[in-house]
Amino acid sequence: MTLTDATHQQNPGQTDTFDESEADTLREYCGVFGVFGFDDAAAITALGLHALQHRGQEAAGIVSFDQGRFHGERRLGLVGDHFSKESTIKRLPGSAAIGHVRYATTGETMLRNVQPLFAELNTGGFALAHNGNLTNAQALRRDLIKEGAIFQSTSDTETILHLVARSRKTALVDRFIEALRQIEGAYSLVCLTNKKLIGARDPLGIRPLVIGELDGKYILASESCALDIIGARFVRDVKNGEIVVISESGLESIEPFPPQAARPCIFEYIYFARPDSVVHGRPVYEVRKAMGRELAREQVIAADVVVPVPDSGVPAALGYSQQSGIPFELGIIRNHYVGRTFIQPTQSVREVGVRMKHSANRCVVEGKRVILIDDSIVRGTTSVKIVQMMRDAGATEVHFLISSPPITHPDYYGIDTPQKDKLLAATHSLEEMRAYIGCDSLAFLSVDGIYRSTGYPGRDNARPQFTDHCFTGDYPTSLTDLVEENRAQLSLLAEAS
Amino acid sequence: MTLTDATHQQNPGQTDTFDESEADTLREYCGVFGVFGFDDAAAITALGLHALQHRGQEAAGIVSFDQGRFHGERRLGLVGDHFSKESTIKRLPGSAAIGHVRYATTGETMLRNVQPLFAELNTGGFALAHNGNLTNAQALRRDLIKEGAIFQSTSDTETILHLVARSRKTALVDRFIEALRQIEGAYSLVCLTNKKLIGARDPLGIRPLVIGELDGKYILASESCALDIIGARFVRDVKNGEIVVISESGLESIEPFPPQAARPCIFEYIYFARPDSVVHGRPVYEVRKAMGRELAREQVIAADVVVPVPDSGVPAALGYSQQSGIPFELGIIRNHYVGRTFIQPTQSVREVGVRMKHSANRCVVEGKRVILIDDSIVRGTTSVKIVQMMRDAGATEVHFLISSPPITHPDYYGIDTPQKDKLLAATHSLEEMRAYIGCDSLAFLSVDGIYRSTGYPGRDNARPQFTDHCFTGDYPTSLTDLVEENRAQLSLLAEAS
Amino acid sequence: MTLTDATHQQNPGQTDTFDESEADTLREYCGVFGVFGFDDAAAITALGLHALQHRGQEAAGIVSFDQGRFHGERRLGLVGDHFSKESTIKRLPGSAAIGHVRYATTGETMLRNVQPLFAELNTGGFALAHNGNLTNAQALRRDLIKEGAIFQSTSDTETILHLVARSRKTALVDRFIEALRQIEGAYSLVCLTNKKLIGARDPLGIRPLVIGELDGKYILASESCALDIIGARFVRDVKNGEIVVISESGLESIEPFPPQAARPCIFEYIYFARPDSVVHGRPVYEVRKAMGRELAREQVIAADVVVPVPDSGVPAALGYSQQSGIPFELGIIRNHYVGRTFIQPTQSVREVGVRMKHSANRCVVEGKRVILIDDSIVRGTTSVKIVQMMRDAGATEVHFLISSPPITHPDYYGIDTPQKDKLLAATHSLEEMRAYIGCDSLAFLSVDGIYRSTGYPGRDNARPQFTDHCFTGDYPTSLTDLVEENRAQLSLLAEAS
Amino acid sequence: MTLTDATHQQNPGQTDTFDESEADTLREYCGVFGVFGFDDAAAITALGLHALQHRGQEAAGIVSFDQGRFHGERRLGLVGDHFSKESTIKRLPGSAAIGHVRYATTGETMLRNVQPLFAELNTGGFALAHNGNLTNAQALRRDLIKEGAIFQSTSDTETILHLVARSRKTALVDRFIEALRQIEGAYSLVCLTNKKLIGARDPLGIRPLVIGELDGKYILASESCALDIIGARFVRDVKNGEIVVISESGLESIEPFPPQAARPCIFEYIYFARPDSVVHGRPVYEVRKAMGRELAREQVIAADVVVPVPDSGVPAALGYSQQSGIPFELGIIRNHYVGRTFIQPTQSVREVGVRMKHSANRCVVEGKRVILIDDSIVRGTTSVKIVQMMRDAGATEVHFLISSPPITHPDYYGIDTPQKDKLLAATHSLEEMRAYIGCDSLAFLSVDGIYRSTGYPGRDNARPQFTDHCFTGDYPTSLTDLVEENRAQLSLLAEAS
Repeated sequence: MTLTDATHQQNPGQTDTFDESEADTLREYCGVFGVFGFDDAAAITALGLHALQHRGQEAAGIVSFDQGRFHGERRLGLVGDHFSKESTIKRLPGSAAIGHVRYATTGETMLRNVQPLFAELNTGGFALAHNGNLTNAQALRRDLIKEGAIFQSTSDTETILHLVARSRKTALVDRFIEALRQIEGAYSLVCLTNKKLIGARDPLGIRPLVIGELDGKYILASESCALDIIGARFVRDVKNGEIVVISESGLESIEPFPPQAARPCIFEYIYFARPDSVVHGRPVYEVRKAMGRELAREQVIAADVVVPVPDSGVPAALGYSQQSGIPFELGIIRNHYVGRTFIQPTQSVREVGVRMKHSANRCVVEGKRVILIDDSIVRGTTSVKIVQMMRDAGATEVHFLISSPPITHPDYYGIDTPQKDKLLAATHSLEEMRAYIGCDSLAFLSVDGIYRSTGYPGRDNARPQFTDHCFTGDYPTSLTDLVEENRAQLSLLAEAS
Repeated sequence: MTLTDATHQQNPGQTDTFDESEADTLREYCGVFGVFGFDDAAAITALGLHALQHRGQEAAGIVSFDQGRFHGERRLGLVGDHFSKESTIKRLPGSAAIGHVRYATTGETMLRNVQPLFAELNTGGFALAHNGNLTNAQALRRDLIKEGAIFQSTSDTETILHLVARSRKTALVDRFIEALRQIEGAYSLVCLTNKKLIGARDPLGIRPLVIGELDGKYILASESCALDIIGARFVRDVKNGEIVVISESGLESIEPFPPQAARPCIFEYIYFARPDSVVHGRPVYEVRKAMGRELAREQVIAADVVVPVPDSGVPAALGYSQQSGIPFELGIIRNHYVGRTFIQPTQSVREVGVRMKHSANRCVVEGKRVILIDDSIVRGTTSVKIVQMMRDAGATEVHFLISSPPITHPDYYGIDTPQKDKLLAATHSLEEMRAYIGCDSLAFLSVDGIYRSTGYPGRDNARPQFTDHCFTGDYPTSLTDLVEENRAQLSLLAEAS
Repeated sequence: MTLTDATHQQNPGQTDTFDESEADTLREYCGVFGVFGFDDAAAITALGLHALQHRGQEAAGIVSFDQGRFHGERRLGLVGDHFSKESTIKRLPGSAAIGHVRYATTGETMLRNVQPLFAELNTGGFALAHNGNLTNAQALRRDLIKEGAIFQSTSDTETILHLVARSRKTALVDRFIEALRQIEGAYSLVCLTNKKLIGARDPLGIRPLVIGELDGKYILASESCALDIIGARFVRDVKNGEIVVISESGLESIEPFPPQAARPCIFEYIYFARPDSVVHGRPVYEVRKAMGRELAREQVIAADVVVPVPDSGVPAALGYSQQSGIPFELGIIRNHYVGRTFIQPTQSVREVGVRMKHSANRCVVEGKRVILIDDSIVRGTTSVKIVQMMRDAGATEVHFLISSPPITHPDYYGIDTPQKDKLLAATHSLEEMRAYIGCDSLAFLSVDGIYRSTGYPGRDNARPQFTDHCFTGDYPTSLTDLVEENRAQLSLLAEAS
Repeated sequence: MTLTDATHQQNPGQTDTFDESEADTLREYCGVFGVFGFDDAAAITALGLHALQHRGQEAAGIVSFDQGRFHGERRLGLVGDHFSKESTIKRLPGSAAIGHVRYATTGETMLRNVQPLFAELNTGGFALAHNGNLTNAQALRRDLIKEGAIFQSTSDTETILHLVARSRKTALVDRFIEALRQIEGAYSLVCLTNKKLIGARDPLGIRPLVIGELDGKYILASESCALDIIGARFVRDVKNGEIVVISESGLESIEPFPPQAARPCIFEYIYFARPDSVVHGRPVYEVRKAMGRELAREQVIAADVVVPVPDSGVPAALGYSQQSGIPFELGIIRNHYVGRTFIQPTQSVREVGVRMKHSANRCVVEGKRVILIDDSIVRGTTSVKIVQMMRDAGATEVHFLISSPPITHPDYYGIDTPQKDKLLAATHSLEEMRAYIGCDSLAFLSVDGIYRSTGYPGRDNARPQFTDHCFTGDYPTSLTDLVEENRAQLSLLAEAS
């Protein structure tokens, strides 16, 4: 029994349905950012969030602390739409702040789900921003409600807040550690108290979090590109399982979990991170180009041009072109003014969908054998249209290459994937996929190929270096909520039979 | 340490400063309404709240239950601005609903304070709307936070929600009773669960709550005028200290407190209730006219016209006119398009303030001895201007009569009074008040006079029939938060000395 | 062929349908205001328009001149919603300004119809605000378009602007006079040039316009209540057919038309003007009370209470009560928070319509013979419900008295009346009206009675003192557009037959 | 004397100041689109305008005709923000429509300047959308006002409307031709009457306009990419000086001017047109790549990478890379979520400006000799920052190449260039520019080089094939307004001396 509450949807227009090509992508839940000791903490946080905008476009929030009070602003929409205004920044005074950008999975676009979350504890205020997803949030939530906790949001992040509030420890950091020990799944957290800025990554380091420095003061951010925009220096990644506590005395590192090898999510390289970010020590742009080069080694094709699906396919296409010697050309032009689904005229005009966002550059494609390069295939609905668009523009052959392996398993760690039966590669053979998409040939980068692109000789199946379950089904943590849900459905089936 | 959060201020324009004459009135916190068993529960609730709009114009909210889910909408602004739209009502399906209109005391116009509040308990959803004010909310809140409760609002009402959530009883009604036993102060509550509509009044019945009936189904409302608008029949008041539980099996009455005489708040008759409401068995309009008649008996004045300060002074002025034989005339015209403070021109134009809302009707006043009748004096700032306005319009004498006794003590039960030192009658003698206001004579209705207006022979000082501390200083409940606050200040003073 | 242009509907919510009781009233098109020589001209104009808000609630506009440029702001909604903000007033600098409040007849709520209108002439800028309605605007418009004029609005007022622009005279005032000589109908105009504030009334002075003074500077306003709010002194009415030109050299009066007796519109006394205004030398409140007294002389009825339909029926009811000795009581309470039509619940709840705005005060009405007093009957739909409401509240008899004669003819001079066949009195006998409305008796004030209320011995049928065609069919000007339209329809009919 | 009118600024947020890097680009005024004979004319027009969004992002408008009435909607903001909603499109019924996207030069972001403009003529309605700029609009406007015309906008386009309205010819097309004969400058026009869709280009064909066809029905559009989005076929360019009249009888061509060679604006190739458009018979992408190749022939530089300033520099950089063999790399990443200027933090953080939009991709640039390629230099302020950004990212050398000649003269035909003294190349020698920008070398494509890129052997100085005055000072039409303005200033100077 839950409360649907549309009260907080300030801009219902923001929730307009997106065109179906949009729905055929992977989406990251979030990006986080935090600063401590800067005079204009909120203004700096707004810039950082702007640089992380690609990690979540649905909503943004900032909480600041001014040595006396916490101040919060949360909004549906882009960072630039709300947090570029002086009036908003002025309502966020103080020298410490944390921020969050968010993409929601379902229709739950309510403002009360927008982070950072905040609670007034008996030790003082506590604000929290989370990138990732817990795999035992439902189980914990049920227990907490039984004990009288009142949840105000539907987000798994609020569970962490209640665990901290309930802890009987005295020191905030101890309460925080006690809370982390109860949760499972993926999390990069940034927290603000009246004394400290705290960062934490889950024991496997699934989602990214980096430490930056400017004028001797510390910054935490999901990606290094958020350090670049403010001219800060990249210091290092927060380690898997590490808690960093930033206060007036500097940065303290705590490692409350048993040592364990990291398994960062491979998808940051494939799709999520900005190409100019350095993730887990490797420049994203270089890794993506390497994927293209690996692809060129694995798939040798006679063709006239290499055409990327913009923008995410561009670096891999460049890598493929440089490795293969086949010229790189912009055969698809992206319209940067997209966002809304237009009314489809009923007549004559053939389905417009994909052309709202992409258009063929006929002069490049006409009469040519085209190698089309994209980063991944989710449902495949967009791929069908892009291949058709190439053919309509006169391509004589269309070879479709994907710079990552087939996605066969859904994610539970903060990536918005459709259910398994909606994943094209989970339900179709390679040839069936090719036929569905309508290309002359279709190929994916191998799992070892993608590991090679990151500098490893291949996947270490005994101790995989990355979280890669979407390709392999090898989920790195227990999935408590999923197991319970399956058990409940099974028992319903058993009763029914 | 608290979080200021402007996130939810959807209509910042709504928080414009009001002109000072506005600030010189008493304000009620709230009105509540609930229905059970009606096909269009939310549409009916919207109408009921509209009829209760005079009890709170700042915000409104409705929560409905459709046998499966709870649905909530809360908005800053008037009921008609938001809950008259089909789109909003459609988002509130179900056959049971509760609603709330609100006036906030301080600048806390945040949407998260707008009621009904809601919590998902392990027994199911629980929504709550409150008229009144608790006098031990801060003490309870402090304890609850110590135990790990996370508060989302600054309202005292959320305390009740946490007490219900924390109760270890099994049945919801038992949990509710356990919560009520811990709170003190004034409350008329309307609650909605997935099975029941619940109403409750505090042991003294300070704030009103009535039961209505339409087609055999029950309605709860702050005032009978909310029954009239939907054509429902007035059944009876909820008794002081009574809980009424309305479900499919009908209405059940529970009296969890030791029996006690009721002491309803006398101010409902003086100012708050709508004149067409019947409060505690007496028509408000008749009581107000009786106050005017009592005033005419107590104060015999030679004058030409009786002029009410509109709209609240009208019934008493009619009563005075009928008793005294002096003609009743509309010597002050009220502008119904008020609400905003206009920019004051810097020159020539004499202070506009009160003229935005009231203007003198010169043809009635010029050359006349005027008896001006108002319901009460709070700070007196408006009275000064209204008397001057009468003189500017040519009144030869202005006799200012108040149809209630002098307000000498602040309220802590849900009426927004200024602090004691801002109450004119608390710091000035009658003659000082007259001189400040600038009238030829000033008189108030006596305390016994106001009791006589309600049908009693006078105040029973041993067992006062009403809550009347604003006039007498006789607070009917303990004031835990106030006592603790005073103690804290005293100890600070002691340390300082 | 016209352009429907919704572009300018900033607040579509403002155009919500009103409930039918709203539609059963007369509405004035407009109010106008102008000042010259005040430092805060726009702030003063905003106050003046606020006092004139009862003359038009749909839209408001101000144009100011700051010795260099004209500045304009026009908005849908109330004056207080838009022109109370400092930001808006700051965009209207200068020491001269004119303003306008507007009520639109049809659905034409577009912003480009909102006045003041403005044109850049070769002699400089010219702004114009108009109260009234031209009866040959369509004919003039057709001619102007033939000559190449481009109209931007659908309002008749723009016609005047084009006539001024086209004039070949040199001086602006001469061009203005040339324009006035071509128009017919009712108009009170306020104009602003880079040197002058100009006021004008049509040759019969149908719509009101007054001159005020404050600190030696002049003000023009539709009603004297707009002078009171800024503390200005009433000087005199602008005379019928007079043009007043206010400049740095003072006030100049021009009378370009042949002398003629004035025939101001009687409806200002009955309904439109605010009760505290002095119109054509008579206090409106006194005239309305006199109507009640005349009614008491004409209609002697045995009854227990006199109940006004608030607010417009109040003065007449007071007059009736004082003349007849039957007590005046507030038997109907008006809800001041009205404006929107709420969703009507489908069941049980009897039709809510009129109860949104009015509710019966049962304690006054129950078991009583009621004299109900209203100012006029248009369609009669509201009257039916109000009478029924009295009966539902227990009235034993309901006698319905109207303080003006039956409305049998539509208006073409700026009052929004329905077409003739929708006017109850145009299509029903008195007894048919009584039966339709459902009262025990129905009576109207006589035509001579209404003239007596204004101080005349009766109507001078040879030279009627007022414009009163709604009661008499005696239209005081030619009706060119109407005649042409009828002719066109007749010729269509002739062709068809 | 003019009226500043903020009335129509629906979204004041839209007028936020842009950061200075934005101001350092060229901007096109407009794009136009029109269809005739399609059931969903407005929906198709919305799609066409979306494809033309790069030609104007400030405002958009559509006027449709439904065989009875014209319907118009105009909005500030992007096409997708307003014209993707079904509610808006439903208000634009009819089978013919024209549309416009607009970029404004100055602060005049008022809605009344948003096109299409509309006038009701005595021959019926007439709607007009204009891309270009008239060079005698002020002179014509002055004459028209003298004759009594009332202008409602400050746009030069309204002049055309008045000329058509004033014409004494009978047929609309004749009136239109008469108007065209009076105007000078650049114009591509799309007009809608109750019978016809009309397109026209100025005698030199400065601004583009193409004819498309779908299912035998005609479309007009600024660029061919707007045909592609709706799946229409490119038919041909409207010829310079040609009027095309599309009606139920098909397409009629009229050539009212003496024959003359076309001189289309060269800037469509350099910057404005979308790369997938075909302009004047040449694919824009190919021309841009050819500019890069020409540049590589003219400027041979020893370097490690070719880096485009995204997005406009990409095709030229690809051409340069392919010609020179130096690898093409994305050394600058563009943030697509730009639009607002953020509050600049006051401390530590070095100037953020250009980093809001662009960031260095360090892994590509570090330790490299970089050839940076951009399409043009206007003020040079952005170039300074981009070069510095390359150095900060570790570039050892930065060679800055521009794929067009130096801009030394302002435009008066619809491109928003700064005044001459703000154009870097107009006031600096090549070496001064290099020093100012801070690069190791700076070079521009030669004038002949740019002509070669379009397929000509070079510029035919006797009869130049393009409008290229920005590079050459060779303005192809008279500049009446400019000459008069200069004369006025000279005479002021003469008086003063």
